Amino acid sequence: MKKVGIAILGLGVVGGGTYEILTQKREFFRETQNVDLVVERVLESNPNRIAALGIAKGCVAANIAEVALDPDVNIVVECIGGIEAAKEYVLAALNAGKTVVTSNKELFSKYSHELERAAKRHNAGLYFEASCVGGVPIIRTLLDGVQSNEISSLMGIINGTTNFILTEMTEKKTSYEEALKEAQRLGYAEANPAADVEGFDAAYKLSILSSLAFHTKVPFTKVFREGITNVSAEDIADGDALGYKLKLLAVGKNSQKGIEVRVHPTFVRKDHPLASVKGSYNAVFVTGDSVGDIMLYGRGAGALPTGSAIVSDIIYAATHSENKYSTFKNTASATEGVKFLNDFASGYYLRLTVNDEPGVLAKIAAILARYSISIVELIQRSSEKEAGKATLVLVTHETRELSVKNAVAKLNATELAKVESVLRVAL
Amino acid sequence: MKKVGIAILGLGVVGGGTYEILTQKREFFRETQNVDLVVERVLESNPNRIAALGIAKGCVAANIAEVALDPDVNIVVECIGGIEAAKEYVLAALNAGKTVVTSNKELFSKYSHELERAAKRHNAGLYFEASCVGGVPIIRTLLDGVQSNEISSLMGIINGTTNFILTEMTEKKTSYEEALKEAQRLGYAEANPAADVEGFDAAYKLSILSSLAFHTKVPFTKVFREGITNVSAEDIADGDALGYKLKLLAVGKNSQKGIEVRVHPTFVRKDHPLASVKGSYNAVFVTGDSVGDIMLYGRGAGALPTGSAIVSDIIYAATHSENKYSTFKNTASATEGVKFLNDFASGYYLRLTVNDEPGVLAKIAAILARYSISIVELIQRSSEKEAGKATLVLVTHETRELSVKNAVAKLNATELAKVESVLRVAL
Repeated sequence: MKKVGIAILGLGVVGGGTYEILTQKREFFRETQNVDLVVERVLESNPNRIAALGIAKGCVAANIAEVALDPDVNIVVECIGGIEAAKEYVLAALNAGKTVVTSNKELFSKYSHELERAAKRHNAGLYFEASCVGGVPIIRTLLDGVQSNEISSLMGIINGTTNFILTEMTEKKTSYEEALKEAQRLGYAEANPAADVEGFDAAYKLSILSSLAFHTKVPFTKVFREGITNVSAEDIADGDALGYKLKLLAVGKNSQKGIEVRVHPTFVRKDHPLASVKGSYNAVFVTGDSVGDIMLYGRGAGALPTGSAIVSDIIYAATHSENKYSTFKNTASATEGVKFLNDFASGYYLRLTVNDEPGVLAKIAAILARYSISIVELIQRSSEKEAGKATLVLVTHETRELSVKNAVAKLNATELAKVESVLRVAL
Repeated sequence: MKKVGIAILGLGVVGGGTYEILTQKREFFRETQNVDLVVERVLESNPNRIAALGIAKGCVAANIAEVALDPDVNIVVECIGGIEAAKEYVLAALNAGKTVVTSNKELFSKYSHELERAAKRHNAGLYFEASCVGGVPIIRTLLDGVQSNEISSLMGIINGTTNFILTEMTEKKTSYEEALKEAQRLGYAEANPAADVEGFDAAYKLSILSSLAFHTKVPFTKVFREGITNVSAEDIADGDALGYKLKLLAVGKNSQKGIEVRVHPTFVRKDHPLASVKGSYNAVFVTGDSVGDIMLYGRGAGALPTGSAIVSDIIYAATHSENKYSTFKNTASATEGVKFLNDFASGYYLRLTVNDEPGVLAKIAAILARYSISIVELIQRSSEKEAGKATLVLVTHETRELSVKNAVAKLNATELAKVESVLRVAL
């Protein structure tokens, strides 16, 4: 039986979970996968973590060089997170010819080009299933499951923290601030939640997934990004009344015109499979030319789900000698000739405060029409906050982002109306 | 670039779809997969099908021997269906050392042992993603995506015809017969619908999926099977009122006690992800020890979705020279020492017609209690059909199948009640 030596860098939540899966299930992997996975080394500066896992001292490396030079180590698992040390360590491992398995979405999103070049130069593998959507095998699916398809669209709920917050706001009708606090109390959100709530985490993942789906490097910097910090309970309730659920959606589209990638709060029709993805669950909805629509659903984070993806990558690396890298064009010139779209089309949800007087609706509709914006649904009600004012909530047909921006500026310049919220609606 | 020659056996819906994907997207596969897939041969007795696809005469083989002996053919795709010819052809191809890709669930379910033995003997690959759930890569996921997990449970809506019929009955409140006619009119059901509506198709797929999930051959004959032909609109409406949707569920469970595999109409709570899988869509919900719950969703049938799975298998075969077979124990003795359970536990839905007189409910509850059956929910209403009678609909806590059978026999033996329906409820 093939013996594969593993080193784990970082024994935090994910690294610790990976250690536990590997050690507790060694016999299971021997039986079912015909491979003997042995943790040979760990690199971790916190002695408490080492003690908590009961790891023998001889197993603990003093530094990355000791890991990279260890002939018993075949696969290095990077669970440090962050960029600087992680990048240095991953490159050291790859340069020593070790296969690397990483869960680091920011690192892979920003430096995949450099990492893959090092891996190829030293004939080392590089696997990153755990960087996106926890244990859900979306990367394996794009590479080996629906690779016969031209993927035109990918829509995902790929950040558990924001989905938890939006689900709380929807179900308990709480404010963003209250829902964030609850998420922090339960450990779903960090003390500084910016990476999640501002959409960075989702944008990293979207750049990775759309690179795979569209077969070319989609840089993180091309992702249009808008977080959930300005979402109000009122918008969620109004959307609900119109038949929509609000999600932080990561959207990638590929067409003759170019590639568009964007992360923003989005209303999704209640009968769409993504609408029922609640709490910290994630899902990715992919449309291919042959397969049609498919969706993968599961937990997007956590020690064991992420550990599942890491260990599945380890087994894949140990049992597949050929398929070591991603299959997207990933060179300095990969994006040459690829057009990334800034403007895009979507449905829109607008909430306006308007003067409650005859003829206002006609005037507003006329302004929207001037920007080629046509209305699908509309609710008007008296404003709860201001006498003499009414609230107008409307959903538009497909419209260009730029038209909406211009129309909103025009509306706000009138005395008639103030646009309180603009949110996109998935069509 | 590696050139791979392909032969397609049978140019019906699936074979024709596969031919179209391969020929129309040859350049796409060259670009994105670095492989040149060329259809070298087809085997099809109907000249109209050959003409419709515009296939050159030189490409048409006279018989299977011509395909098996053709040195330009590397991969043989079996799209004939049925058993006899398909089995003979697949074995001929494997024995000639050709890799086989098949969508034939009945063939693989019944003869995987024999087919894999031939494949291994001749170092040929054997792939069968298209046999289960159309283009949804559930087999690839079990083999390469969540293979680090011990799978305890697998629940699937894996037959599109029956899901279409049950969705019609639910949404349009029609009878089984009307819904079946509509399914036949739309081409979702065959003139003789037995393979679908009696649960055979789902049972073949379940035997394949649970063999992979539980790492041992799960013979088709071990699957408990009950179709949807006796499902009534009344049961669907009553279940709906209690918060359930009726689905033909394929259930596989693996525990210390043994393996249970069963296909039967099942009530699923409306908030379960499987409940919102409608029409001809399919989904498989898998529970693993690390990954937790994941679900894969998509179209379970059709020329292009099934073609997607076949062509993805072809690309996988062309680009992975190791991983040619399934990883479950698949020998004559594979099931030795494996216990298959006949009795199982589930929630139950019972609909009874009872005498509308004082004390009846107490007596019925007492009989159920005697069989350790406890009630979660209950609705009583006057019978619409018979004066002096009432209808009682109840859902039980987890109960053993055998207890329910005995209790039903006991209830029917009294003068008090007649049990009209017994359906299982997913817990």
